[in-house]
Amino acid sequence: VKPREDITELVEGAVGGTARAVSKLLTIVDDDHPAAAEVAEALTPHARATAVIGITGPPGVGKSTLTSLLVRSIRSRGQRVGVLAVDPSSPFSRGALLGDRVRMMEHAGDSEVFIRSVSARGHLGGLSSSVPQSVRVLEACFDVVIVETVGVGQSEVDIAKLADTTVVVLAPGYGDVVQMAKAGILEVADLFVVNKADRDGVDDLLRDLKRVVSLGRHHRAGPHRAQHVITTVATQRAESSTLLDALDDHAAWLKQHDLLTARRVERAALSLQLITVRRVQAELTALAGGRLLPALAEQIAKGETDPYRAAAHLLNAMSRAMASGDSPCGA
Amino acid sequence: VKPREDITELVEGAVGGTARAVSKLLTIVDDDHPAAAEVAEALTPHARATAVIGITGPPGVGKSTLTSLLVRSIRSRGQRVGVLAVDPSSPFSRGALLGDRVRMMEHAGDSEVFIRSVSARGHLGGLSSSVPQSVRVLEACFDVVIVETVGVGQSEVDIAKLADTTVVVLAPGYGDVVQMAKAGILEVADLFVVNKADRDGVDDLLRDLKRVVSLGRHHRAGPHRAQHVITTVATQRAESSTLLDALDDHAAWLKQHDLLTARRVERAALSLQLITVRRVQAELTALAGGRLLPALAEQIAKGETDPYRAAAHLLNAMSRAMASGDSPCGA
Repeated sequence: VKPREDITELVEGAVGGTARAVSKLLTIVDDDHPAAAEVAEALTPHARATAVIGITGPPGVGKSTLTSLLVRSIRSRGQRVGVLAVDPSSPFSRGALLGDRVRMMEHAGDSEVFIRSVSARGHLGGLSSSVPQSVRVLEACFDVVIVETVGVGQSEVDIAKLADTTVVVLAPGYGDVVQMAKAGILEVADLFVVNKADRDGVDDLLRDLKRVVSLGRHHRAGPHRAQHVITTVATQRAESSTLLDALDDHAAWLKQHDLLTARRVERAALSLQLITVRRVQAELTALAGGRLLPALAEQIAKGETDPYRAAAHLLNAMSRAMASGDSPCGA
Repeated sequence: VKPREDITELVEGAVGGTARAVSKLLTIVDDDHPAAAEVAEALTPHARATAVIGITGPPGVGKSTLTSLLVRSIRSRGQRVGVLAVDPSSPFSRGALLGDRVRMMEHAGDSEVFIRSVSARGHLGGLSSSVPQSVRVLEACFDVVIVETVGVGQSEVDIAKLADTTVVVLAPGYGDVVQMAKAGILEVADLFVVNKADRDGVDDLLRDLKRVVSLGRHHRAGPHRAQHVITTVATQRAESSTLLDALDDHAAWLKQHDLLTARRVERAALSLQLITVRRVQAELTALAGGRLLPALAEQIAKGETDPYRAAAHLLNAMSRAMASGDSPCGA
């Protein structure tokens, strides 16, 4: 564990614009490093209203190219951008999927653009608690944060909860919109981008999307705007501002309906819940020197107890350990 | 909440072969009904060594047809079969994806075959605690349990942990095996079935698979067997026993290496952890009449505290409430 002064210095360096410091902070929160809590604490005075944009969609639709275009538009306004590429790959073989970062390389020499890949997977299959922590680091350091995910599926639904505005990118020939709608994964979109709009099949795709939009389904409980649809050909540089304009439009809508704070609170609530649950998992696993959980699982398998009774036993043991300050994981 | 005697009667009816009773039990555990704990308790004396088979793979490869074939083979041995079709759809639009149950209709008149669809999604994106509970109900009631999932992705990785043997079904033209391998989702396979093996592209698929198998990656930490690959044309009834033979083969391997008990214990451990975490989530959400969590999230968003400090506060409040018997959710 780094001494506290080092962490404070690192945070100040990162907020001040040092890419190396940002990178170090992300390593600490991504690896669930013992200093993650100190990083979180040191970030507190730097909390500010940063726009968080989510970009998701099936592989092959051109998300990276589009993100790169968007980064260029934001940079041309003089704003600094942090990009988090979230890889939903298996916890068993961390981080192998991302190979498509090459198109983002045009920004490699720009010190005001920061790009980093992280793994999305936590224990028990949920979203890793380190993803919202990474977003919090970037929020403190940049004017705009882009969270790009690989693929479109359940992990992406969770990640969308972290964004103010979520863009779902589609393209003719990449995935069945009707199936995606049925699976509920288009409800995360605030904005659809139909990319590769110069290709065959774009009319069918737009027609299907129109039907999806007319359903009016959205994953947020509060007020939401009808999902807008824009078309792009991301390989044509002239398209550069189309997406940014649409994002500005949505940001203005959020502001007008006083929802920007609500989005930040939702992000914080998700972050808080994931950290709490992660901490509970660590406590449960460590109880009785790591022997209580396997012993109870064995009793369930043998038909000596049931999962609910065993869960109550585990929770009581944890509460007693924590209340007596005897928490195996520290206070 | 049903009186305890009713639950005991229901469990005895289900174990005795009444489909209606099985169905009622699954409704109770799927909906996280207050009587779920009583069902779990009433199942304890009926714990037994039931084979649990997982079947997963991309949409369109013929999983339902193959499952239906497998059910027929198992039935021809006189064994009773319970099928759980797990739908990883969004928690916002529960259970819309499954429409492909039609092929399973051939078993509709067979009282020894039970088929039920459940939703896979829990809170915070993880596997729902009700999935392992549903498996536990079917384990008590049938000789063989099949857990079929829709799609292939992260939810399927989690569900694979519930099975003794996991079958990944592939077909020429349905998904890129190399990409799936990179994403780590082929590591769940104990057995690959290449279905639609009469189609173009089967040789390429088998070659890619051979390479995947040679990597020797598997999601289980313990000993594992090299993944076997079989080919089928599930629409041809003659194929009926191919898959069952391969499954018997893997079951024999598990037995020989004394792993069947280990699988049951792993299943119980996952079930226990999911229930415990679910219970913790309910407790956290209910603290201070439901006001503590949102208040802390607001403080984080305002830059008054950080997620780790807030999590410690939440956990202390929960431990105190539980230790004093003042748990908002009951003991």
